[in-house]
Amino acid sequence: MNLRTVLNLITATLLASYAAAAFADPADEIIALEKAALDRWGKGDPQGYLDLYAPEVTYFDPFVERRVDGLETMRKNFALIQGKVQIVKMDMIGAKVQRHGDIAILTFNLVDDGRQPDGSLVSVPWNCTEVYMRMGGKWKIIHNHWSYIQPAPKLLPVK
Amino acid sequence: MNLRTVLNLITATLLASYAAAAFADPADEIIALEKAALDRWGKGDPQGYLDLYAPEVTYFDPFVERRVDGLETMRKNFALIQGKVQIVKMDMIGAKVQRHGDIAILTFNLVDDGRQPDGSLVSVPWNCTEVYMRMGGKWKIIHNHWSYIQPAPKLLPVK
Repeated sequence: MNLRTVLNLITATLLASYAAAAFADPADEIIALEKAALDRWGKGDPQGYLDLYAPEVTYFDPFVERRVDGLETMRKNFALIQGKVQIVKMDMIGAKVQRHGDIAILTFNLVDDGRQPDGSLVSVPWNCTEVYMRMGGKWKIIHNHWSYIQPAPKLLPVK
Repeated sequence: MNLRTVLNLITATLLASYAAAAFADPADEIIALEKAALDRWGKGDPQGYLDLYAPEVTYFDPFVERRVDGLETMRKNFALIQGKVQIVKMDMIGAKVQRHGDIAILTFNLVDDGRQPDGSLVSVPWNCTEVYMRMGGKWKIIHNHWSYIQPAPKLLPVK
């Protein structure tokens, strides 16, 4: 074993302990995962969320007419907005994790400043629910619900 | 033991087996709990939901400015609308339960026809997430997220 191998081993061991120590609390790890996915989303890259979604994921946002079921449908939907989102500032407010064993519910409010197609900026306030589940040694999202804060409803005619 | 006591015992035993058999699948029990709470809600009675909420419940709906935390705050908020909701028709669409042990995520769309203060009827379409958890032999709600389907956002000025 030469010096370089020994140094590499020491570095690998230190990095592994750092990663474990950095997320001694699973809540911190989950919030970090969410922030990393949000960051990619804000640069027009939905792959961060797609990598987190479990095959069984269910999903609501203000644009869908009905709940979306399953990762494959999410892939198709997100492919349509690839490269189209540009968020210049995000403020995650009051992140809270309710963890019960291998399930953790992350909830927060979010205010993001996004660039519109005409170049103007608008600020959009959100409610967000993410239900994470530990599977295969990783936290994955099994349910995601995004909604606007205090929007005006689109009422339907009574049938 | 007189005849009436014997009959009462037989009835109680039969009812208990019926209740257990009626909900062989926990998903059916959860959907039945939700429908019963919704039914009371539509008659202006929020107590059905309050009875289901666990002390740790977290909550979003289109009216709150930030996530609501805890049963006591929910009690205060719902007290303000006691007797004020009048829903004449409800259609629960696509109810789905993702159960993992003692946690079950119930999601559905809902269209309800509600009476307005001026007597007119409006139809409101909803997304709903309910995270149930089995505690003390009962399913309780630990997170609830209601949002409108395809609303117009209330945008904020960019700061």
